[in-house]
Amino acid sequence: MSDTDHLHTNETQRIEAFSDGVFAIAITLLIIEIGVPRVTESESLSDALGDLWPSYGAYVLSFVMIGIYWANHHSVFRLFIRIDHFFLMLNVFFLMCIAFLPFPTAVLGEYLKGAEHRDAAVGFYAFGLLLPALGWLSFWLYANARGLVDERLAPEYVRFLTVQFLLSLIPYVLAIAMSFLNAWAAVGICVGFTLLYLLPPRRPRYSP
Amino acid sequence: MSDTDHLHTNETQRIEAFSDGVFAIAITLLIIEIGVPRVTESESLSDALGDLWPSYGAYVLSFVMIGIYWANHHSVFRLFIRIDHFFLMLNVFFLMCIAFLPFPTAVLGEYLKGAEHRDAAVGFYAFGLLLPALGWLSFWLYANARGLVDERLAPEYVRFLTVQFLLSLIPYVLAIAMSFLNAWAAVGICVGFTLLYLLPPRRPRYSP
Amino acid sequence: MSDTDHLHTNETQRIEAFSDGVFAIAITLLIIEIGVPRVTESESLSDALGDLWPSYGAYVLSFVMIGIYWANHHSVFRLFIRIDHFFLMLNVFFLMCIAFLPFPTAVLGEYLKGAEHRDAAVGFYAFGLLLPALGWLSFWLYANARGLVDERLAPEYVRFLTVQFLLSLIPYVLAIAMSFLNAWAAVGICVGFTLLYLLPPRRPRYSP
Amino acid sequence: MSDTDHLHTNETQRIEAFSDGVFAIAITLLIIEIGVPRVTESESLSDALGDLWPSYGAYVLSFVMIGIYWANHHSVFRLFIRIDHFFLMLNVFFLMCIAFLPFPTAVLGEYLKGAEHRDAAVGFYAFGLLLPALGWLSFWLYANARGLVDERLAPEYVRFLTVQFLLSLIPYVLAIAMSFLNAWAAVGICVGFTLLYLLPPRRPRYSP
Repeated sequence: MSDTDHLHTNETQRIEAFSDGVFAIAITLLIIEIGVPRVTESESLSDALGDLWPSYGAYVLSFVMIGIYWANHHSVFRLFIRIDHFFLMLNVFFLMCIAFLPFPTAVLGEYLKGAEHRDAAVGFYAFGLLLPALGWLSFWLYANARGLVDERLAPEYVRFLTVQFLLSLIPYVLAIAMSFLNAWAAVGICVGFTLLYLLPPRRPRYSP
Repeated sequence: MSDTDHLHTNETQRIEAFSDGVFAIAITLLIIEIGVPRVTESESLSDALGDLWPSYGAYVLSFVMIGIYWANHHSVFRLFIRIDHFFLMLNVFFLMCIAFLPFPTAVLGEYLKGAEHRDAAVGFYAFGLLLPALGWLSFWLYANARGLVDERLAPEYVRFLTVQFLLSLIPYVLAIAMSFLNAWAAVGICVGFTLLYLLPPRRPRYSP
Repeated sequence: MSDTDHLHTNETQRIEAFSDGVFAIAITLLIIEIGVPRVTESESLSDALGDLWPSYGAYVLSFVMIGIYWANHHSVFRLFIRIDHFFLMLNVFFLMCIAFLPFPTAVLGEYLKGAEHRDAAVGFYAFGLLLPALGWLSFWLYANARGLVDERLAPEYVRFLTVQFLLSLIPYVLAIAMSFLNAWAAVGICVGFTLLYLLPPRRPRYSP
Repeated sequence: MSDTDHLHTNETQRIEAFSDGVFAIAITLLIIEIGVPRVTESESLSDALGDLWPSYGAYVLSFVMIGIYWANHHSVFRLFIRIDHFFLMLNVFFLMCIAFLPFPTAVLGEYLKGAEHRDAAVGFYAFGLLLPALGWLSFWLYANARGLVDERLAPEYVRFLTVQFLLSLIPYVLAIAMSFLNAWAAVGICVGFTLLYLLPPRRPRYSP
């Protein structure tokens, strides 16, 4: 375990600062994917702007998701007391999934309205939400397996988090499956699950 | 109130750093929305660059607005001594409104010149300015209702801010309404109100 | 002078962090303006990539310029010991000029090659370099007029900087004028002046 | 050596923060280069999204490369105890190479699939990977020549790094050469070398 460092404060701060940078940029880039509408002769600009509602909806949903991941990333990093090279790489992999999100968001905004491609757009978006959940789970499981997590935490609290992160994959898998049957129901799952995430997280509990 | 934390310095710093990241990115992305002009046969590049004046104007106006919000965000955060999960979420909502601004800015730049769509473009832009004002007001009111604000502040100073934030909605609502009647007057309201914001803010007053 | 604060360290850090954010984003956005070339039937991708040399050149020049401004911004901020609201606003104005630079850079990359629009493209680019030089000068003059600069600095060092910042406008004004006569000579001025900036700056001198 | 400063902690932090900003932005901008596919009549959205696999692959490869550079940049900066103006400029040059990477990544994503332009696209991408390796080597050699590196480091460790950084150019030069013969083999070199980089770096060794 020679490549495991105790987590020095300025070390954590730099990892968190970099992660926060990626969160902040990914969240702000979401708007770039909404192009200024070209108005046709028979249309008004108001109508054209209104027609972009799927893009606005996708923007709000992805913005909230990334915002929640940002808040949670910070909470969970306070539980780590050591760090190693592969953990760093798994964090990069997680950030890769976060940074990918503007693309499925743009696809959803573009193709949600037309009936023809709605299923594929929603399924791809749900897959885009599944990716960071997988990335998150993988660095959590790795940190547990390698003993990077604070030992003073109550074991049942650590178990609770593991179960929670595992369960959090289900709605996205479900939404992907559902997108083949009923795209709007799949959208409903994604939105509902995001609303659930807006609730305050359970606080860390330490062994007595 | 078990989910209310005292605001630790490094906690605030991370929220402010993330918010500053979104401010900095949103403000810098504004330029991306101005595309390099394609020059037609009969036109000179100078004319084509000059014809982009509505885009330059919209760029300057939105840049100053986000810059002012950045400065004010910092000032108002010094008044908070506690924080909770929903406050964090309301801050994310506020940032969502800031990050949205490049889109109405691009719409204004594109459609301000032609008479046909000017009204809708200006109205949409004023709406884009109303959104962060609403987001700002909502996290201020929430912070007051939940006792997150420093109790040592003079009550009349807190009241002054509440009234100021409420009143700040009026010009944008007015500009939206005015955009149906006279788009240039609506632009004037937005510009004038921004100039007003350039004045130094009132300093915090504490109870004796 | 009730709105003048002594420059607290964490205050400076936040202004510098925000400014650094804008520098970092503007500098990194430069590459976004170079689009992937669409290869026509009769052309090879190598040729198409080679044909983008004006874009590469403009990218390098603007990258170095923003990098130099970043380094200098940091040096000059160490000379300020107080701050006020208008100084903050002038810093925002300066950042607006920096954030604008990707646009003239893209224009230069697009129109440098064709003889027809070269003059206008070069002139506009030189104007794009003049803007941050003007923004820089304005916040320096304001800081001097309002006594925000460290009084312990040797007066001749402060004067040296004022003269240097004033003189730095000349090459850009010259390049704008020259662009009407000989665009390549104007490019030469911009490049030469940037190389000059690569030299180490003079160190602060304090009164004995 | 009057322009050589001892590396104050907040000085390093600002250089690292700026570098981290460029890393974070360049890494997050990669996704912007993948455009939402326009679906033609005879095609499904799923097929169109699947057809983008070269873009996904290029995204993952470049993301991991920039992530590794970020981690390594941090490690190597801990070895410097002094800094000077040209070192700062060489760091800017290195960041210029990092910030350039989204462009060859986009070219690779666009042209990897078609046989006609694959060679040029892969060669250009390998060149895009060579550039930051060259930038890295140049600031390392400069730092050694000017005595900016911590003298307490074991000389054989410093030599080991120099050799490692020199050798790291070879695979990219090889990949560029190989791209003329067999583009897929060149891709294989780039991918294989990146996987190698995922291994933990050797830890600094100090003189006894």
